[in-house]
Amino acid sequence: MEKDSLEKTYSEYIACLNRRDWENLGNFVHKKVVRNDRQIGLTGYRAMLEGDVIAIPDLFFSVKLLVCQTPLVASRLHFDCTPTGDLFGHPIRGRRVLFDENVFYEFSEHKIARVWSVIDQSAIAAQI
Amino acid sequence: MEKDSLEKTYSEYIACLNRRDWENLGNFVHKKVVRNDRQIGLTGYRAMLEGDVIAIPDLFFSVKLLVCQTPLVASRLHFDCTPTGDLFGHPIRGRRVLFDENVFYEFSEHKIARVWSVIDQSAIAAQI
Repeated sequence: MEKDSLEKTYSEYIACLNRRDWENLGNFVHKKVVRNDRQIGLTGYRAMLEGDVIAIPDLFFSVKLLVCQTPLVASRLHFDCTPTGDLFGHPIRGRRVLFDENVFYEFSEHKIARVWSVIDQSAIAAQI
Repeated sequence: MEKDSLEKTYSEYIACLNRRDWENLGNFVHKKVVRNDRQIGLTGYRAMLEGDVIAIPDLFFSVKLLVCQTPLVASRLHFDCTPTGDLFGHPIRGRRVLFDENVFYEFSEHKIARVWSVIDQSAIAAQI
């Protein structure tokens, strides 16, 4: 998979998330996807995202930094949102929070097969 | 700066940290370096690292994932160490902890000029 194609696919994946197009998630995410060393599979990945959107109805993935080198993509995602309840154990309840996620993806067969994500939870703690 | 040169420079930067060679840190880190949106400069960056090593005498930077696309480098660093006191507010006191850091670097004039780091503090919390 070429670098330009990787960038394009990643951009389409983010657009898919932002329009809550779960039916097409399997075009971007491998059936056997492993996230943070746990094989959750496409079903688990979709359930995780659906849960995120229930917790954060205005969740929007904004790519601030993107680094591509086949088969890896590294992305810094920024979130500016208002979770309705708790977030990572912090009581947010409709307040606005801003935080970032630094995440790596490994592509296999043109799909995201492994994900290593770290969310800046300390930034959230500092805002409440 | 070419991608191969970026990889080589980053690898030399990590080796510099692992041998505590603070005198040569300025070969890799820009005088006006900005870390997580704060301009701490080379002096502040060195002070931060010296503090890290006092808190974690066996600190060793191990690169698990590396993605380079000029002028950016993204790296997943793994740490397997025994901090002597507290770490991110958690009382470790000589116990072994394992954690990761997902970090982006922007190079300018062949040196690290901006850093966006997220450390997996929740992994540390889960180990104590």
